Amino acid sequence: MQKRIVILGGAGFIGTHLCLRLLEAGHEVFCVDIRDAADSPLLRSARQHPSLHLVRHNIVSPFGIRCDEIYNMASPSMVRYDKALPVEALKTSIAGSINALDTARTEHARVLFGSSGCVYDTDRRPGAGRDRCSTHRILAEGKLAAEALHRAYRDEYGVDTRIARIFNTYGPGADIMDQRVVMKMIAAALQNRDIAVNGSGDQTRAFCWVEDMAEGLIRLMEAPATEYARTVDLGNNHEVTIRMLAEKIVALTGSRSRIVHLPARADDAPRRAPDISAARRELGWTPRTPLIEGLRRTISYVEKELSGKKHAVMTWAEMN
Amino acid sequence: MQKRIVILGGAGFIGTHLCLRLLEAGHEVFCVDIRDAADSPLLRSARQHPSLHLVRHNIVSPFGIRCDEIYNMASPSMVRYDKALPVEALKTSIAGSINALDTARTEHARVLFGSSGCVYDTDRRPGAGRDRCSTHRILAEGKLAAEALHRAYRDEYGVDTRIARIFNTYGPGADIMDQRVVMKMIAAALQNRDIAVNGSGDQTRAFCWVEDMAEGLIRLMEAPATEYARTVDLGNNHEVTIRMLAEKIVALTGSRSRIVHLPARADDAPRRAPDISAARRELGWTPRTPLIEGLRRTISYVEKELSGKKHAVMTWAEMN
Repeated sequence: MQKRIVILGGAGFIGTHLCLRLLEAGHEVFCVDIRDAADSPLLRSARQHPSLHLVRHNIVSPFGIRCDEIYNMASPSMVRYDKALPVEALKTSIAGSINALDTARTEHARVLFGSSGCVYDTDRRPGAGRDRCSTHRILAEGKLAAEALHRAYRDEYGVDTRIARIFNTYGPGADIMDQRVVMKMIAAALQNRDIAVNGSGDQTRAFCWVEDMAEGLIRLMEAPATEYARTVDLGNNHEVTIRMLAEKIVALTGSRSRIVHLPARADDAPRRAPDISAARRELGWTPRTPLIEGLRRTISYVEKELSGKKHAVMTWAEMN
Repeated sequence: MQKRIVILGGAGFIGTHLCLRLLEAGHEVFCVDIRDAADSPLLRSARQHPSLHLVRHNIVSPFGIRCDEIYNMASPSMVRYDKALPVEALKTSIAGSINALDTARTEHARVLFGSSGCVYDTDRRPGAGRDRCSTHRILAEGKLAAEALHRAYRDEYGVDTRIARIFNTYGPGADIMDQRVVMKMIAAALQNRDIAVNGSGDQTRAFCWVEDMAEGLIRLMEAPATEYARTVDLGNNHEVTIRMLAEKIVALTGSRSRIVHLPARADDAPRRAPDISAARRELGWTPRTPLIEGLRRTISYVEKELSGKKHAVMTWAEMN
């Protein structure tokens, strides 16, 4: 059955993959984003698809689209928005969710909210340093407020809401100027620049291949309704140390980059991995793509992007 | 110097005391509330004061008042709002704060946000039961989102914001139909009804006399500005067990009430008390009124209210 599906933040990293998969499955897809879809390397090729509708809109303002499902993947983290513009960053999560939920309510549509694994890192104790906004904290607080709104709309209005707490995800489609660790290391390796590791590099992270993530999100959306707002962690739970990640990327790219150690960051968690038992049990989902395979494909994507984007790369190199 | 001071939720329990104290100090006071100030026993008498301006408004909608200071004490908890109407409860905290902060930004006014000690109780782990809205959780999530907005407006727009995490407060002015433990026990004792204690009653709480609280809030508002959004716990840190509280109230009222034990509640914290070291250090504030003295005064307030409110009391008794 063909559905009308709205992807908020559809020109972003994970949003792009959802758009493409759902188009492929034969659905009518509304890609809503503040950015031009032409900026997304993967969406560029699909722009002429008759079932893809590009809607340029900031979801902080209300909107209405006739639809059956809404994936709310809009997140301010990619655009270095949150540190300089924390009010706008919070409003993207909070007002954006209210507007999405109000649309879902009128449309009797399901909503999946793309939350973040960083909600587990919040430390509430007062203290001068912690009373300042940090990028990470602003993202977490916005996501938590949005989660509460999704539960409230479920309980009060019966809107069918689902919450995915998304952990580190990587793969083609991400902005090569992205500040997330995999992208940053691959770009540095391909340019033979130093690869920076904070502290010893013994801290572990777990990286989920973007197509595995898109699959998990779609399964969560398609799972039967429950009485409550279903909340699951999505991500890969196979941990690697940051140093090992850097070494793998150097080896796979044949780079001359050196791995250099910067001072450890105070807020750097020693471990971060999702608990995917609920996703496995309730959605029958588990990430399948080994890190080496995902890294290989990501490297060839970045290589291609770098060769086509001389100007952007220069700017990026200057910035770092 | 006479200031123009806005009290959001000024007809509520703590808001009322702020209105009266700030009027007494010679300020122009704008009491903004969704309720009629005539419903507040203490404000009733001050209604004719030439410097008191009653504004009936739901702060979920924008407002503008020329002012120097805004105390945001608006909270949905009193009106049994949050369980039945979690969306509206969250919007009171979230949209209400955005509107207050936007007014503060244009007016160059200071804002004090009345947060709650319950922000420390939040448990983020997913799980069916916890994915439902509870009154306590909705309150906490709304307060946390509002705190984040206050920090963000501080960082991005330079609005001078202060955050008070308010712990259990009691005293005259509270609604005698209030569901908070002190009020509930006093009303039961005065009517010789059973006093219910959850579990053993060995769990401790700490109760702050409302005038001490009002003093702390005013000191926080008047403290020098800092680079960050100043956040402090306010409350009494002298803990008593719930059983001891019940016994004291029975003794002070000379009641024939029996203390009966109900099953323990799963979400009942064994201890809850503020850490007031920051308030002591930075504001020179400490609560001064002993519990016995505060209870005596509260009891005589409730006695007077009960005798004047036959109808309300009947309704209340029927409800319980």
